[in-house]
Amino acid sequence: PMASKKEVHSTSDEIVEIHANVDDQTGEGLGYAMDRLMTAGAYDAYFTPIFMKKNRPAYQVTVITTSAKLTHMVDLLMTHTTTFGVRWTTMKRTTLPRKFATVTTIYGDVTLKIGTFKTQNKITVEYDSAAVLADAHHVSLDDVRRAALLAYDKEDGMA
Amino acid sequence: PMASKKEVHSTSDEIVEIHANVDDQTGEGLGYAMDRLMTAGAYDAYFTPIFMKKNRPAYQVTVITTSAKLTHMVDLLMTHTTTFGVRWTTMKRTTLPRKFATVTTIYGDVTLKIGTFKTQNKITVEYDSAAVLADAHHVSLDDVRRAALLAYDKEDGMA
Amino acid sequence: PMASKKEVHSTSDEIVEIHANVDDQTGEGLGYAMDRLMTAGAYDAYFTPIFMKKNRPAYQVTVITTSAKLTHMVDLLMTHTTTFGVRWTTMKRTTLPRKFATVTTIYGDVTLKIGTFKTQNKITVEYDSAAVLADAHHVSLDDVRRAALLAYDKEDGMA
Amino acid sequence: PMASKKEVHSTSDEIVEIHANVDDQTGEGLGYAMDRLMTAGAYDAYFTPIFMKKNRPAYQVTVITTSAKLTHMVDLLMTHTTTFGVRWTTMKRTTLPRKFATVTTIYGDVTLKIGTFKTQNKITVEYDSAAVLADAHHVSLDDVRRAALLAYDKEDGMA
Amino acid sequence: PMASKKEVHSTSDEIVEIHANVDDQTGEGLGYAMDRLMTAGAYDAYFTPIFMKKNRPAYQVTVITTSAKLTHMVDLLMTHTTTFGVRWTTMKRTTLPRKFATVTTIYGDVTLKIGTFKTQNKITVEYDSAAVLADAHHVSLDDVRRAALLAYDKEDGMA
Amino acid sequence: PMASKKEVHSTSDEIVEIHANVDDQTGEGLGYAMDRLMTAGAYDAYFTPIFMKKNRPAYQVTVITTSAKLTHMVDLLMTHTTTFGVRWTTMKRTTLPRKFATVTTIYGDVTLKIGTFKTQNKITVEYDSAAVLADAHHVSLDDVRRAALLAYDKEDGMA
Ligand code: NI
Ligand code: NI
Ligand code: NI
Ligand code: NI
Ligand code: NI
Ligand code: NI
Ligand code: NI
Ligand code: NI
Ligand code: NI
Ligand code: NI
Ligand code: NI
Ligand code: NI
Repeated sequence: PMASKKEVHSTSDEIVEIHANVDDQTGEGLGYAMDRLMTAGAYDAYFTPIFMKKNRPAYQVTVITTSAKLTHMVDLLMTHTTTFGVRWTTMKRTTLPRKFATVTTIYGDVTLKIGTFKTQNKITVEYDSAAVLADAHHVSLDDVRRAALLAYDKEDGMA
Repeated sequence: PMASKKEVHSTSDEIVEIHANVDDQTGEGLGYAMDRLMTAGAYDAYFTPIFMKKNRPAYQVTVITTSAKLTHMVDLLMTHTTTFGVRWTTMKRTTLPRKFATVTTIYGDVTLKIGTFKTQNKITVEYDSAAVLADAHHVSLDDVRRAALLAYDKEDGMA
Repeated sequence: PMASKKEVHSTSDEIVEIHANVDDQTGEGLGYAMDRLMTAGAYDAYFTPIFMKKNRPAYQVTVITTSAKLTHMVDLLMTHTTTFGVRWTTMKRTTLPRKFATVTTIYGDVTLKIGTFKTQNKITVEYDSAAVLADAHHVSLDDVRRAALLAYDKEDGMA
Repeated sequence: PMASKKEVHSTSDEIVEIHANVDDQTGEGLGYAMDRLMTAGAYDAYFTPIFMKKNRPAYQVTVITTSAKLTHMVDLLMTHTTTFGVRWTTMKRTTLPRKFATVTTIYGDVTLKIGTFKTQNKITVEYDSAAVLADAHHVSLDDVRRAALLAYDKEDGMA
Repeated sequence: PMASKKEVHSTSDEIVEIHANVDDQTGEGLGYAMDRLMTAGAYDAYFTPIFMKKNRPAYQVTVITTSAKLTHMVDLLMTHTTTFGVRWTTMKRTTLPRKFATVTTIYGDVTLKIGTFKTQNKITVEYDSAAVLADAHHVSLDDVRRAALLAYDKEDGMA
Repeated sequence: PMASKKEVHSTSDEIVEIHANVDDQTGEGLGYAMDRLMTAGAYDAYFTPIFMKKNRPAYQVTVITTSAKLTHMVDLLMTHTTTFGVRWTTMKRTTLPRKFATVTTIYGDVTLKIGTFKTQNKITVEYDSAAVLADAHHVSLDDVRRAALLAYDKEDGMA
C-alpha cells in the first residue's frame, strides 16, 4: 500500500556476537550499560540469565554488532560492565529485503515494515509509531496494531 | 544385553547453530514454530529466555542442524517466526558411538540407548518407549526407567 | 459475529496455586508430569527456572487448580515428580465473561474467544482451530490468525 | 550526612501480588504493558520466564501494589495484556524506615537512600541521580556510585 | 531394606514463603546471601530470574521457612541483600512420611531417603553420601546412584 | 596502593566455548558436574535455562576453556553429564591487563583486582578474601567490599 518510504535490499552478510558473563554487577548497572550499547548503535544488546559457580545467579550480556563497531562495543563493555574479559565470534546473517509503508487508522498514521520472503509479504507494525498512538488514545497497543493490519489488508483488496 | 537393534558409529563432525531473537511473536506462535522445525528434521530446536531493550521479555530461538538443512531451516524460521533476520555459525561436534538395545520389564519392553565412552557404557532409557508403558500401567516414568535399568544390569550380571 | 457457540459468565472466584521445587528430576520426567497434570484437568501447569543451593539449576513446578481438585493434583505431583513435599495457597481470581464464535476464512473456519471487558470486546484466536488450518495449508499460524481477525472485523462492519 | 530531604517511617503492612500467565502476547506488547503499570503507580511490575503447555515459552506478569490500587491494576492488565484472567493474594510486608540525603561528588550531587536496620545504616545510591551524572560526564555508573559512597563515608568520619 | 536410621512422620503443616526482588546487588553478593540463609536453617533459598523496569535483569530471592524462623530470615535478608523490603505469606504444605536407609555398593555405603506414598515407596539417593563416593572413586554421580538403587532393589527381592 | 602481588599482562587470545543441551539429567547431577569442570580448570562453567521439545524444561551447559584443555573438558562432560554429544567453537577474547593488590580494612586484609583500561583503573574486590572476613565479623559482604574500596581510594589520595 502507498509509496514506500524507504527500501532496503538486504543480502547475506556477517555480524559479530560478543559475550560477557557478569556476576559482579547489579541489574541497575546492567540496564544502564544496555542504554549505552544501544545508543552507540548496537544491532541488539540483551541479557540471558545464567547460573554460575558458587551459587551465583548471573547474566550473560550479548551484543550483536558489525565488525566495524566491534572495538567500540568492546570498549563500552569494558567501561560500563564489570567484566575483565569479553569473547566474540563472527556469524553469517541472512535478512529479508524490506521496505516501510504508512497506513492510516482511526488512531492516526502507523508505520509498517514489509519484508519480502519468496512470494509472500511479511508485515510487522513498527512499535514506536503504534505505541505513541496507543498512549494518546488510551487504548491498548494491540488495538492500534490490529487497526493498522486491517488498514493494510483493505488497501491490498483483501478485506 | 540382547542383540543390538541398530549400531551407529559416530565421528566428529560439524553442525550449524542458528539463532534468532524474537520479541514480537507470542509463545503460542513460537510453540507452533518448534513443531515445524522438529518435524522438518532439526537435531534440536529450543528457546532461551532473554531480556531485550525497552523492557521486552523475549526468547532466543536456536536451531541445531546440518549444513545440508541450513537453507530449509532458515526458510522455516522466516515463515514461522516473526524475525526478519537470522544468524548462524558452524560448530564442531563430538558424539559418542551408540547402539540400541531392548530389555524386558514387568511393564513391557523398553529401548535403551547405549553409548560407548572409553571403557564404559553410558546408558539412557529411550523416553518414548518408557512413557507409553508408564501411561498404560498408571505408574510414574521413573518406575519404568528404574525397572529398565535394573533389567539391563541383571543381564550384565551386575545384579 | 454469528451465533455464539457457548456463553460463559465468569465471576470472581478462588483458585489454588501449588508449588514444588524440583532439583532431582530430569527435564524429560518433568515434561511427562506436565502431561499428566494437564490431562487431569489442571487449569495450568508450568515450569519456572530457579537456581538452588549447591549450584543446582532447577525448576519450580506450579499448578493452578480448584480446591476440589487440590488433593488429586497433589497426588499427581507426588507420583510423577520426585518431590517429597508441596506447598499451596488459595488466591482470588477475576476472569472476563467470554463467549466463543466462529468465523470463516479462506483457510477454513476458525474459533474466536471473545471477552467482554467494560465497553470493549477482547478477541483471541483459539490456537487449536488455527494451528490445524496452518498445517493443512502450509502457511504460518499468523497468516491464519490475521485472516480470522480480519473476517471478524468485516462482520462487525469495521473493515 | 546533611539534612535529610524526606523521612519515611515504615511499618509492617500488606501488599497485593497479582499474577497473570501470558503465552499469547508479544514481548513488545508486554514491555508496553509494564510502562502502563508503572506509570499508574504499581510498586513493581516484572516478568518471569515460564514454560507452559504445548512447548510455549511464556512469561508470568507480576504486579506488586496496594489493596487500594488492586482494581485499577487489574483493569490495566485486562486492557494491556492478552490475559482473560488474573489471580492475586495479599502478602505481609516489612520495610526498613528510610530517609534521603544528598552528597556532593566531583560529578555533581547524588541522592542516597539510607535505611535504618538495627544499629546499622543501609545505604543505596539512587539510580536516577547517578545515571544522569554518568551520562553527562561520560563515566560509568559505578564511578559515580563509588564517588557518592566515598563522599558519604567521609562526612561520617569513616574515611 | 535394613533398619531405618531415622523415621520422620510428617503431617500437613504450614510454611512461610518470603520474596524479595533484587536489582541492585551483584550475583556474587546473592550467592553469599544464600549461604547465610541456608546455614541459618532455611528449608530452601533460591533465585528466580526476573525482568524489571528500566531494562534491569534482576533476581527474585525466595526463602521457604517456618513461622518460628520468619523474623530471623527477614533479618538475614535485610543484612545480606540490598533490599529495603520483603513480603511473605503462609502456605499449607503436605509432605510424605519418610525414613532413611543405608545400602552397600561397590563404591561404599550410600544413604537412601524412602518416602511412603499410598502403597508405594518413593526412593531418593541422598546427594551428599553419593557425591563423596563418586569423588573418591572417580566415577560419575549417576554410577553411584544407579548402584545404590540396584542394591536397594536386590534387597527387596526385585532384582 | 601497596606492592602488587602479581602482574598479568593479557593480550587478545582465543578461547573455546563448549555447549551441551541436557534434558535427561537432574539439577543435582548438573551441580556435581560443575564442580568437576571448575576443579579441572575450566575458565568458567555455567547453566542457561532452555525450553526444549515435548515440554521439557532443560539447561544448556556451557564451558569456557582453552584449546589445550578442550579434550579433557569434553571427557568430563561425557562422564559427568548425560549428554551423548557436545558442540564447540573457538572465539576471540580480549582481556584487560590486571594486577592484584592488598588493602587493609577494619575487618582485615582484602585483595583487589585492578584492571588497566585506557587511562582508568578498574577495581574489583576479590570475592574469597572479602567473604571470609564478612563471615568472621558477622557483617555483610557489602560492608567489607565498601571498606576495601574506601581504603583503596584513601591510599590513592581520592578520599
Ligand atoms: Ni562511544
Ligand atoms: Ni550460541
Ligand atoms: Ni519444508
Ligand atoms: Ni509463589
Ligand atoms: Ni488421576
Ligand atoms: Ni507468587
Ligand atoms: Ni488508569
Ligand atoms: Ni557535571
Ligand atoms: Ni543469625
Ligand atoms: Ni571406596
Ligand atoms: Ni554462545
Ligand atoms: Ni580429569
